[in-house]
Amino acid sequence: MTEDQIRKILEQHKSGALSSEDALHRLRALPFEDLGFANVDHHRTLRQGFPEVIFGMGKTVDQVGKIVESMHQHNHNILVTRATPAHFERVKQIAPEAEFHEGARAIVIQKSAAILGKGTVLVVSAGTSDMAVAEEAVVTLKVMGNEIDSLYDVGVAGLHRLLDRRERLAKARVIIVVAGMEGALPSVVGGLVSVPVIAVPTSVGYGASFNGIAALLGMLNSCAISTTATAQRLSPV
Amino acid sequence: MTEDQIRKILEQHKSGALSSEDALHRLRALPFEDLGFANVDHHRTLRQGFPEVIFGMGKTVDQVGKIVESMHQHNHNILVTRATPAHFERVKQIAPEAEFHEGARAIVIQKSAAILGKGTVLVVSAGTSDMAVAEEAVVTLKVMGNEIDSLYDVGVAGLHRLLDRRERLAKARVIIVVAGMEGALPSVVGGLVSVPVIAVPTSVGYGASFNGIAALLGMLNSCAISTTATAQRLSPV
Amino acid sequence: MTEDQIRKILEQHKSGALSSEDALHRLRALPFEDLGFANVDHHRTLRQGFPEVIFGMGKTVDQVGKIVESMHQHNHNILVTRATPAHFERVKQIAPEAEFHEGARAIVIQKSAAILGKGTVLVVSAGTSDMAVAEEAVVTLKVMGNEIDSLYDVGVAGLHRLLDRRERLAKARVIIVVAGMEGALPSVVGGLVSVPVIAVPTSVGYGASFNGIAALLGMLNSCAISTTATAQRLSPV
Amino acid sequence: MTEDQIRKILEQHKSGALSSEDALHRLRALPFEDLGFANVDHHRTLRQGFPEVIFGMGKTVDQVGKIVESMHQHNHNILVTRATPAHFERVKQIAPEAEFHEGARAIVIQKSAAILGKGTVLVVSAGTSDMAVAEEAVVTLKVMGNEIDSLYDVGVAGLHRLLDRRERLAKARVIIVVAGMEGALPSVVGGLVSVPVIAVPTSVGYGASFNGIAALLGMLNSCAISTTATAQRLSPV
Amino acid sequence: MTEDQIRKILEQHKSGALSSEDALHRLRALPFEDLGFANVDHHRTLRQGFPEVIFGMGKTVDQVGKIVESMHQHNHNILVTRATPAHFERVKQIAPEAEFHEGARAIVIQKSAAILGKGTVLVVSAGTSDMAVAEEAVVTLKVMGNEIDSLYDVGVAGLHRLLDRRERLAKARVIIVVAGMEGALPSVVGGLVSVPVIAVPTSVGYGASFNGIAALLGMLNSCAISTTATAQRLSPV
Amino acid sequence: MTEDQIRKILEQHKSGALSSEDALHRLRALPFEDLGFANVDHHRTLRQGFPEVIFGMGKTVDQVGKIVESMHQHNHNILVTRATPAHFERVKQIAPEAEFHEGARAIVIQKSAAILGKGTVLVVSAGTSDMAVAEEAVVTLKVMGNEIDSLYDVGVAGLHRLLDRRERLAKARVIIVVAGMEGALPSVVGGLVSVPVIAVPTSVGYGASFNGIAALLGMLNSCAISTTATAQRLSPV
Amino acid sequence: MTEDQIRKILEQHKSGALSSEDALHRLRALPFEDLGFANVDHHRTLRQGFPEVIFGMGKTVDQVGKIVESMHQHNHNILVTRATPAHFERVKQIAPEAEFHEGARAIVIQKSAAILGKGTVLVVSAGTSDMAVAEEAVVTLKVMGNEIDSLYDVGVAGLHRLLDRRERLAKARVIIVVAGMEGALPSVVGGLVSVPVIAVPTSVGYGASFNGIAALLGMLNSCAISTTATAQRLSPV
Amino acid sequence: MTEDQIRKILEQHKSGALSSEDALHRLRALPFEDLGFANVDHHRTLRQGFPEVIFGMGKTVDQVGKIVESMHQHNHNILVTRATPAHFERVKQIAPEAEFHEGARAIVIQKSAAILGKGTVLVVSAGTSDMAVAEEAVVTLKVMGNEIDSLYDVGVAGLHRLLDRRERLAKARVIIVVAGMEGALPSVVGGLVSVPVIAVPTSVGYGASFNGIAALLGMLNSCAISTTATAQRLSPV
Repeated sequence: MTEDQIRKILEQHKSGALSSEDALHRLRALPFEDLGFANVDHHRTLRQGFPEVIFGMGKTVDQVGKIVESMHQHNHNILVTRATPAHFERVKQIAPEAEFHEGARAIVIQKSAAILGKGTVLVVSAGTSDMAVAEEAVVTLKVMGNEIDSLYDVGVAGLHRLLDRRERLAKARVIIVVAGMEGALPSVVGGLVSVPVIAVPTSVGYGASFNGIAALLGMLNSCAISTTATAQRLSPV
Repeated sequence: MTEDQIRKILEQHKSGALSSEDALHRLRALPFEDLGFANVDHHRTLRQGFPEVIFGMGKTVDQVGKIVESMHQHNHNILVTRATPAHFERVKQIAPEAEFHEGARAIVIQKSAAILGKGTVLVVSAGTSDMAVAEEAVVTLKVMGNEIDSLYDVGVAGLHRLLDRRERLAKARVIIVVAGMEGALPSVVGGLVSVPVIAVPTSVGYGASFNGIAALLGMLNSCAISTTATAQRLSPV
Repeated sequence: MTEDQIRKILEQHKSGALSSEDALHRLRALPFEDLGFANVDHHRTLRQGFPEVIFGMGKTVDQVGKIVESMHQHNHNILVTRATPAHFERVKQIAPEAEFHEGARAIVIQKSAAILGKGTVLVVSAGTSDMAVAEEAVVTLKVMGNEIDSLYDVGVAGLHRLLDRRERLAKARVIIVVAGMEGALPSVVGGLVSVPVIAVPTSVGYGASFNGIAALLGMLNSCAISTTATAQRLSPV
Repeated sequence: MTEDQIRKILEQHKSGALSSEDALHRLRALPFEDLGFANVDHHRTLRQGFPEVIFGMGKTVDQVGKIVESMHQHNHNILVTRATPAHFERVKQIAPEAEFHEGARAIVIQKSAAILGKGTVLVVSAGTSDMAVAEEAVVTLKVMGNEIDSLYDVGVAGLHRLLDRRERLAKARVIIVVAGMEGALPSVVGGLVSVPVIAVPTSVGYGASFNGIAALLGMLNSCAISTTATAQRLSPV
Repeated sequence: MTEDQIRKILEQHKSGALSSEDALHRLRALPFEDLGFANVDHHRTLRQGFPEVIFGMGKTVDQVGKIVESMHQHNHNILVTRATPAHFERVKQIAPEAEFHEGARAIVIQKSAAILGKGTVLVVSAGTSDMAVAEEAVVTLKVMGNEIDSLYDVGVAGLHRLLDRRERLAKARVIIVVAGMEGALPSVVGGLVSVPVIAVPTSVGYGASFNGIAALLGMLNSCAISTTATAQRLSPV
Repeated sequence: MTEDQIRKILEQHKSGALSSEDALHRLRALPFEDLGFANVDHHRTLRQGFPEVIFGMGKTVDQVGKIVESMHQHNHNILVTRATPAHFERVKQIAPEAEFHEGARAIVIQKSAAILGKGTVLVVSAGTSDMAVAEEAVVTLKVMGNEIDSLYDVGVAGLHRLLDRRERLAKARVIIVVAGMEGALPSVVGGLVSVPVIAVPTSVGYGASFNGIAALLGMLNSCAISTTATAQRLSPV
Repeated sequence: MTEDQIRKILEQHKSGALSSEDALHRLRALPFEDLGFANVDHHRTLRQGFPEVIFGMGKTVDQVGKIVESMHQHNHNILVTRATPAHFERVKQIAPEAEFHEGARAIVIQKSAAILGKGTVLVVSAGTSDMAVAEEAVVTLKVMGNEIDSLYDVGVAGLHRLLDRRERLAKARVIIVVAGMEGALPSVVGGLVSVPVIAVPTSVGYGASFNGIAALLGMLNSCAISTTATAQRLSPV
Repeated sequence: MTEDQIRKILEQHKSGALSSEDALHRLRALPFEDLGFANVDHHRTLRQGFPEVIFGMGKTVDQVGKIVESMHQHNHNILVTRATPAHFERVKQIAPEAEFHEGARAIVIQKSAAILGKGTVLVVSAGTSDMAVAEEAVVTLKVMGNEIDSLYDVGVAGLHRLLDRRERLAKARVIIVVAGMEGALPSVVGGLVSVPVIAVPTSVGYGASFNGIAALLGMLNSCAISTTATAQRLSPV
């Protein structure tokens, strides 16, 4: 390890086996990246249970297979997003316990069911058509160790459906609101709660929604809510 | 139900089982959403014959099936827009009287043929290529109880075809004008009539129409007509 | 055919079966285009009190002056939109009774106060910052002979302000909703009423509103309301 | 004014100063709209040999079939653009002499080979990949009675290929230049000739050409050429 | 007020002055909006110290003045964003303790300095040119009762400047990263910490940044960070 | 000159002063550009009366001054487009006969009034607000030796105004149609004539015209007219 | 050939068979294009080993076949980009040694393996999903005679992976960095090296990457790097 | 400096003044950023004469002043880009030798005139209107120690002007081509040379150039040139 390397240089220098110039040179050459690396590594590897996420889109079946294989030896939850049935075929050979969430386009290998997050994350979707994106959020949250509640098909056109469940809104510690078309639901939810609201645009809608740009812009400009964020991570525009 | 709940609180308060403070507290806690619900419900349920509209795009066959099933028990007209043949297969099992309008991508269950609107709505389309969108408008209008006239293939390139039918234009109470390409037809129609003109852009056109953006912008900027509206509801850009 | 019709009229007139006045009348009535001309003319000239509208933007003071001068002899209400103070200086010399609505950028010469429209048009604005555009709507509606009510600063962030006035919403025959930012207010209003809602986007907002595009798209994609129209006529994006 | 004119004609006709034919003729000449109608008709019907053009995109096989059938009785050349093989199958049943230009996506029924245009139209394409669009231009020009020359694959990357044929450039009366990617070829051609150059953008190119927007903008902004036009008519962006 | 209204209905019902049916009817008619209002009001009014925020852009000096005046009687912190010096002149007459943050374009009346948030919010800016936007974030955070640290001019071009302060990054509970140009700084910060990172795009940059669209898109697509949000609230694109 | 150079090489080769190889080499090295130059020069210089056009935008007063000065010695008409009053001040010192067309932002030095074009070019504008752009077209056409007619303020909203002048439309050999807003006028004009129609979009319009993009797209997609071209040369979008 | 033509003219002139005037005339008439051609030809033909590149997209199998056939007689390396398996089938019949790089969509006929470039070109890709585009770069570089190193899957999310290989970064003479999503990797690489960095955007990413526009803009606005270029040549946006 | 610090730690460790643990600790604590810094610093500081570049846009006079002040003590050339006259006023007080290049909007303090680059960089501009951007390139190149040649006003409309100077093109080691409008000049230059061509789009042009987007896209899609890069660094779009 890095520490060992530094220690060795110091000793060699002290013993005279290494001139000052050489020690200096080696120390400068010590890739600072290693230090950086260890650090980042902590982010991802050392916190047990934190899942590795593989972005499946654009990867061949072989590429996904090899990455999963190498990860599978550790005790992490594994998530493959934007996965295809072909990806799943291969992953299942490696990890028979893998599950495929078709709507969410996600493969999950859930080795640990430990709850790591605080409180419940509520996933709200505007319409049944937005459900696939909402499911991707749910799958992601679950594999990362969160307690989840969900409220589907409570769009602005039937506001009462949402208002009826205000108690569940009130219990959530974070709310993820998935909506297409004009993307107004997060504004309405944001006006009813004081916890952070994460808005996720979908491409559901007629032609003038321009594949989700209308929803994305609506969410970026929401003025009614306490905290709005656009999680491009979870869904397509 | 809400009414029962309120009634119970009132009775308990009257009987003294509930103090004024407690009654007040409970009444305030009565989710206003319920009242709201009832209200909105009136919009959609109480006016007999008003159709329920299901947006088919992005919904699975199962989802559409279940929604239609639950609605089918009431006496409403039902409309599924952006429907696929697979959607129709399922709906037909539930409601054999269902009809599929392929061009319009719409499934219709017309339980009532009562005319609810005032006057005739005239649907005008610029070209034969715009007819599918025009048909979606016609189907929607019909299922909602309107008297309809239609005038197809009367685009700007053959202005006389439109002008020849000016009497029919004059008789309409509202005119829906469907056009692609540069979307100039609504401007021309708007210059000939004094009733509201609803402009519907379509994605018909060469590459430079950018899938209907040219038509949409043309309609949004029309300066010649009495009243222009862009009905994103009825058609794709 | 037209030729035959003309021939017949000529013959009947020659034979005395048709008076000169009647022949003239029939001939005028013939080519619908003539009617179109006359018709449009009716739109603008013959229906007393209907205002002439002058688009001020890009016109010199002289040009606006000359147009107003030539119109001022008739008894019409006159409206100059997108007018500048310099435009007004000149118009006032021609018509001392002219008024300048600075926020609305409109010059009005109101010769007749007759009410021509049916029912009340309610103009709703989301925030105080949207008021100039709302005022342009109010001024335009008034000069065209409508009864108007207005409800300002009732945006989504303070929904209760809107809900408190639901009775006034309920009384309107048409509602014009002016909003910037994410433009969600028309969706909310549309969910509460059954009359036509005309949505007017404004350019009020932070950078990500892209000068009103966010609001425009939000309104074009609204799914919660009975009837939505985008009135580009009344306001800038 | 029109009224006075009509009145005068009526009087002169009654008094015999004007024959019925002359009165009819003058009256027909009056309402510009009638002439407009007839006129447009002239555009399309009366000038023998002028082809009828049917925009195939978005039309069903039946619709195209019926339109061709009704036209086929006249002696016009017929052109169906954006046609599919299925369209062609049907058209061939109606007019066995019909030809399908697959690259150009055009069906042609060439009843007359008369040359109606003056001089040669030269169609130039930048690369072999742009040839389908160039062919659509050639087919259209031919069916409309033009003499055509063509110069393919003479893009900017091999400028000498173009320069070698400068004599053919010099002989053309109009040059149509088809190009994708950055669309610079029309600028270069325009710098070498003094006849009108019609620039036609294609969607050929890498991702950053945004399906022809780069070429379209390049052509709209060309500063080196005598006369540039963008013929959206002939090709997709 | 609402409470009084409900109380009165309860009393009249108890006393028999109101039948059960009538009481029920009145309670249902009690505009749920009022209840809604009280609720939302809690959001904003009842939590002591929570500031009222006035969006200054597009408001006249008079409008801002009147709103501040009416708020000034309560003990809230007041924030006017997108304020002009003219706005400030007026506000100072009403509240002499008001401060104007010119770079941030914000007027602040800080009545309470109580810390309401948990932990420190670190505001990081990429370059000195982004400082005005960063300052708007700082001012907003402060007036809302947060402890703040800031790190300016630590853009990607001088990565070491950021890495040098990694300890301060590590101490923050939330990090707001303000950047223009390609907006890559939030990705880098996000790779170094595990707390939420809120990315704020600015319009600083050369022409190809398209007034911040490049930064906005960069932030929306960041793949390196734990949690990214785009706070349109704090800054212009 | 080039000719002299070639002549010299030939002589030296004939006299034996230059080997065949050397002569060949020199001839190959003769910059073809010179020949090219002479050629292009013919385009611009040799055809008497053809004007030099200077694009004023972005040029300093000094730069425009020097270019005009060097051109002024020849007998060409000179046109400076996008010129400022400051440009004009300087040009007037060099050529006192220079005229400034303020609306058209053009400086003209008209040395020859010879008519070089065939037939009349008719410049049509939709509204008074589009007149500055129309004037730029008129000035450009005139300085290049064309006979011009013009028809202003004949937009689609008052179609009769255009139709009334159909005889003037019919007389033109080319028609330039200038329009903003939805840019529908060229489609209408194109439906009435058979000569080429050059469509020129302007940025006149409300916000949703996006500074002329709506008009530009409308014109690029016009389907009603014989020949449409977008002359970006003459006007801003 | 051109050289022969010139030689012949020189000889005929020397022998007196051609007068000076005639020789001059012929030499001038020698299309400078030919000279130009030879010149450009030098670019492409005379430098041995420089490959011919055929853009496969939009070309039929026949067209690609014929072009390869005519080239195959020379000793050039041949590259077909954006090639399909069908293209390859045909090319293999002509040149059995041809290889198909499926990911890169490239056909290569490598006749010469001579190294023509100086130093190593390092191709870096952000993620496994970007590999196909990186491979297109590698194939292109190789066929053109460059020494290549590659570093895949070293995106910003695992910065250490990149930093660990800094020595390989340091050895490269040019670095090509391929990235999708927010396209930040080139900025980071550019901050670590002083050689030119060529940034290649890919369309890998979630919906908000808008098919690579986010990456393209990120790269165009990079502020951290010594030299950035966007090689649209190698990859789709 | 860092080197000194490391040296000191090594010596103290060797002398026993620092235990191994402490030396290790200090070396680890030596912020790798410092190493990173030193590294980057090498980029910028150690190579004598390499200028510091300050992006002036969005910085106050004070901010620019302080940055220049702190840099002025070293012997670097200093460049302030996007500078205002006010910036210059202040900089001149600090460094009287500073020069302001108004067109280029750049302040230069040139302490060293040493040539650091290899060969000549040729800056080519399409038109006089593009000169300000070209000058920014020239100023930047000069302050960074390059030999420069420039060729202005050689746009595509007068191709011969460029071709006349082909020898100067041939001598350059890198060519920077600045162009607005359709941005075709780099394609033409790229077809004539084999050295890298760096294309710089400017916002010069009519409305349809969309402030340089047309030129930017043209350059990104150039297919005729050996190497194209878009240097957003040097110029606005």
